[in-house]
Amino acid sequence: MDEQAALALIGDHLPAAGDDCAVVDGQVVTTDMLHDRTDFPEGTTRYTAGWRAVGASLSDVASMGADATAAVAVYAAPAFDADELTAFLDGAVDVCESVAAEYVGGDLDGHEEFTVATTALGDADDPVLRSGASPGDALCVTGTLGRSGAALRLFERGETERANDLFRFEPRVAAGVALREYATAMLDSSDGLARSVHQLCGASDCGAALSGPLPIADAVDTVAGDAEERRELGVFFGEDFELVCAVPETDLAAAREAVPCPLHRIGTVTEDGVTLDGEPLADRGYSH
Amino acid sequence: MDEQAALALIGDHLPAAGDDCAVVDGQVVTTDMLHDRTDFPEGTTRYTAGWRAVGASLSDVASMGADATAAVAVYAAPAFDADELTAFLDGAVDVCESVAAEYVGGDLDGHEEFTVATTALGDADDPVLRSGASPGDALCVTGTLGRSGAALRLFERGETERANDLFRFEPRVAAGVALREYATAMLDSSDGLARSVHQLCGASDCGAALSGPLPIADAVDTVAGDAEERRELGVFFGEDFELVCAVPETDLAAAREAVPCPLHRIGTVTEDGVTLDGEPLADRGYSH
Repeated sequence: MDEQAALALIGDHLPAAGDDCAVVDGQVVTTDMLHDRTDFPEGTTRYTAGWRAVGASLSDVASMGADATAAVAVYAAPAFDADELTAFLDGAVDVCESVAAEYVGGDLDGHEEFTVATTALGDADDPVLRSGASPGDALCVTGTLGRSGAALRLFERGETERANDLFRFEPRVAAGVALREYATAMLDSSDGLARSVHQLCGASDCGAALSGPLPIADAVDTVAGDAEERRELGVFFGEDFELVCAVPETDLAAAREAVPCPLHRIGTVTEDGVTLDGEPLADRGYSH
Repeated sequence: MDEQAALALIGDHLPAAGDDCAVVDGQVVTTDMLHDRTDFPEGTTRYTAGWRAVGASLSDVASMGADATAAVAVYAAPAFDADELTAFLDGAVDVCESVAAEYVGGDLDGHEEFTVATTALGDADDPVLRSGASPGDALCVTGTLGRSGAALRLFERGETERANDLFRFEPRVAAGVALREYATAMLDSSDGLARSVHQLCGASDCGAALSGPLPIADAVDTVAGDAEERRELGVFFGEDFELVCAVPETDLAAAREAVPCPLHRIGTVTEDGVTLDGEPLADRGYSH
């Protein structure tokens, strides 16, 4: 059973699952696990690891349109080095401060592979789900796509300082809160733009017609060898933690005004099918 | 740096850390990680694993005297088997139901070693910390000690059905809620009775004089080869998830009346030093 099928099984068992966060009594909660082999390329500092791991969960909070309140993490490693642990905590605290949340601690675990499990909490009386988009809504994404893919190439090349910079992202909590008044459906782009759009469309029982140019990060242009790699990193790679949302056409200008970062329209919600410039867009992306 | 030193480092960085849960706006939150090598002996069913992993976090909620509200988990494994995942979810849901909390889902992660990260939430306006005990308070423990140690021996012998039964425990949420009116300090016995008493005394800046007989589980007697092993499993092994608390002498009868399980007095809080039957009790226990 692949991850998608396994997630579907969880969804069948747990009615509260299926969005980026579960919703409990006006609160949202989300949990994630990241580890060395797939999530922290060689050269990733512990500061970046703390920032990114906690940031990934804060991004899920953002995607529900919730105010982030607190986060915790389990730091699991073969050994506990004081400098590494301190750097990790500093990263976790700093990313929380960047979104006005509180990092309140967590636990330690001896583990062969460096692994981090994070949980974030947020407040939202009326969270934005993946399931509310309607044909005609504008499909939008915050910021730019492909930063993490570009970072991975830079790690591979040993350009670790720039790679670490790209790997630390500010979770889009302020944008999510601004969008909750307007967005009919929202999630983050952690699985890549293509899969995220498919997920939104699947939950909303609709389709989407995307049209380029997509807002691909400049960093992608500096690492991509050709147009195909550029598209791969920008559209499929994922782990970017931007917000993908549907906004009614009539609210688009107001939403853009309210959101404190670029909100790029990438297409329109349709009855069915997911296309980019008229061609079918594959439902593939990052598998964790 | 060992785990105790690493935890102290976290405590220096994060004022909210140091108890079984962090406290945020009238809510408690706790997170844990368990994995194959150290936490799930061969023969542990996925149902038991789900129950026990989520139960460990619910036990932390209980130890703050909080009402458990919700839990999430990350299920990380080399492959996702539908039967195994379903059994895990059933265990997670059932342990939550046993304490009137809701299991609201979580995430999946591909991971070489079967690993579970759990987070539980609870409500408590005035949570019980580890730090409020005073000399003269009665020192108490709920239930019996050594079940998990006995289970481990049974797993080793291949008596997996009985071992699994012992490994599933009902988190002491109801007892914790009843005790919050009386307990001056509380934590759970996840690191073993000895270390838990040391932790309570360290946080409360006091000592404790314990006296036997301690409430060792019958299961320990059936597996322990001699008195020394009995004491090792009951006092030091840990992972029992009972509540260890200090209660003012004058409240002890009322606390016993209120708690829906046995509340065994094991000693008295003193000015300093931790002893059992007059002999120093070592500060050692389960390291995760």
